[in-house]
Amino acid sequence: MYAVIMAGGRGTRFWPKSREKMPKHLLDIFGKKTIIQETVERIGPMIPAKNILIVTGASHSDEVMRQLPHLPEENIIIEPVGRNTAPCIGLAAMYIKKMNPEAVMVVLPSDHYIPDEEAFRRTLAIAAEIAQRGNYLLTIGIKPTSPETGYGYMEQGEPVAVIRGEEILQVRSFREKPGLEQAKSFLQDGGFSWNSGMFIWKVSTILHEINRLLPNLYKGLLKIEDAIGTDSEKDVIGEVYQEIDPISIDYGVMEKAGGTLLVKGDFGWSDVGSWNALWKVWDKDENGNAARGRFIGVDSSNSLVYSPDKLVALVGVEDLVVVETADSILVCKRTGSQDVKKLVDMLEEKNMKEYL
Amino acid sequence: MYAVIMAGGRGTRFWPKSREKMPKHLLDIFGKKTIIQETVERIGPMIPAKNILIVTGASHSDEVMRQLPHLPEENIIIEPVGRNTAPCIGLAAMYIKKMNPEAVMVVLPSDHYIPDEEAFRRTLAIAAEIAQRGNYLLTIGIKPTSPETGYGYMEQGEPVAVIRGEEILQVRSFREKPGLEQAKSFLQDGGFSWNSGMFIWKVSTILHEINRLLPNLYKGLLKIEDAIGTDSEKDVIGEVYQEIDPISIDYGVMEKAGGTLLVKGDFGWSDVGSWNALWKVWDKDENGNAARGRFIGVDSSNSLVYSPDKLVALVGVEDLVVVETADSILVCKRTGSQDVKKLVDMLEEKNMKEYL
Repeated sequence: MYAVIMAGGRGTRFWPKSREKMPKHLLDIFGKKTIIQETVERIGPMIPAKNILIVTGASHSDEVMRQLPHLPEENIIIEPVGRNTAPCIGLAAMYIKKMNPEAVMVVLPSDHYIPDEEAFRRTLAIAAEIAQRGNYLLTIGIKPTSPETGYGYMEQGEPVAVIRGEEILQVRSFREKPGLEQAKSFLQDGGFSWNSGMFIWKVSTILHEINRLLPNLYKGLLKIEDAIGTDSEKDVIGEVYQEIDPISIDYGVMEKAGGTLLVKGDFGWSDVGSWNALWKVWDKDENGNAARGRFIGVDSSNSLVYSPDKLVALVGVEDLVVVETADSILVCKRTGSQDVKKLVDMLEEKNMKEYL
Repeated sequence: MYAVIMAGGRGTRFWPKSREKMPKHLLDIFGKKTIIQETVERIGPMIPAKNILIVTGASHSDEVMRQLPHLPEENIIIEPVGRNTAPCIGLAAMYIKKMNPEAVMVVLPSDHYIPDEEAFRRTLAIAAEIAQRGNYLLTIGIKPTSPETGYGYMEQGEPVAVIRGEEILQVRSFREKPGLEQAKSFLQDGGFSWNSGMFIWKVSTILHEINRLLPNLYKGLLKIEDAIGTDSEKDVIGEVYQEIDPISIDYGVMEKAGGTLLVKGDFGWSDVGSWNALWKVWDKDENGNAARGRFIGVDSSNSLVYSPDKLVALVGVEDLVVVETADSILVCKRTGSQDVKKLVDMLEEKNMKEYL
């Protein structure tokens, strides 16, 4: 059993804490450790370090190695440019194939929040057990707790098995991020799961599906396969990545493959994709304020404060995000914290590179 | 002609920029110079430096001297404790009496905003001319432009003279800070002025009135008069200030004296008593944002940003005050910025002295 941790995020949504050189998964905003450290440690009891691969960008690989010193250096696979998840997963599959062509691989995002680690590993083990049995494409589906419009959804189909009390179901359809009304109807219906972005399959299975559904990508991957371990490895990867189109594994494979399965997961999962989402998972005081750093509030509520260096005083405000870093201060409406992206775009437009 | 500049403020309203050691009048929040420097320079064309006295607290006197190096050191009069404006003015009057008992003295707050300096000096000259002619207590009354509840008002009485086109009127009554409805009625009535806290009179006149209306204070001032210039000067001031009651010149003298006069002033005056008031006088961009320091806004409006060191980014917010200093960040609702006082009280309660 191998794990592939996808660590390619650009990190605009947690500006000013996240930067081009320091995307979300390299930050310690969930706890004492960085998110990628937590992600690796979470699977530690199931998968040995030598079987854990990280796929990341060239500008982050040094920091990834620094944060994960117990992983073999050759397990840090570098993508020369980001091409979305399908090439990333295909690339990792080729590396694993070299080691063990019949291995089961679990694909995990590097930056998700999973408070119940035991339950997570239980679910993952069940999914791996099924993957081992045949040519299945498995995902983990999360029971929705609110009408989130930032997640993809999966319509659940017929149950195909029950293992140790956990149901495995067919996926009837994948649904891209819905509008609020549709998200509410999904929630009410009860037959939908959030798409967690976690996948489990045999290396041979996913490579077969990529060959069938994304033949151009597969051709590129074959070139890479030949070059792995040779002097030209890096150059070939660079050439292939220049040519291949960016495409997600969801759109490129999962939605088209048919017969995909989902294992239901219930471990408090969230992708924590904004400061507002982070506020939801942080501990709060009696006024709903969640703070890291020295904080004092007067008539202020439901705000997130991140300020390692300075005292932050809030007076008469609510639903704000206040973040201090060495060179910047962000103040934004909490419920509009996805608009931080707009700000980063503006910094780019204004060529204020030192803040990116 | 002498000027007395009252520089005793504690500076809680501009926290975190103002601190116990650095009250508002010592800050450069109006322009390139500090407010007390602007106050002194504004009267420079009328009154020589040797005739300008500053009354301040012991903990601020060094900084006052540093900011006003062209004033003789002996012109910085130190109050051992603050006792409101009546003792402050009486003390200064005694010093001036030693130099010239028939002098006209103008009493000015150290921290007001006066954009039209020429008009200000014209008004002051007219007031001084009248003060010279007899035992008048004169104030400068400002034409109200909005129903401010943070200012005292004066009900205007009969006109008594016109000098160079400027009307001098009797004061019919003083009105303490009104409620909003009353303030609106004052504004609509048209017969009310804002009390600017600026006074003009002969030294002999004000000392006579203090003797008549505040006899205990006067007794204390006589003891100080005897000690001025002797080795015991500082000790005597200390003893007297321990005994005298705090009282404002408005309440202790002006409201009770009768026959006070006001000269109408129209020079854009504001006491700028809060971050919100400062926002009103600062230049704003097309979204109503007033910023000092590097600032970028997305869908944000009508806010004040003061951040000398860090980039401040506002996203989706309005009507905020954001202030950064070396150790603190304030985020408060602009229209509730007088509540910053509550925050300073809380810092005191929590014994967070380093932030006071």
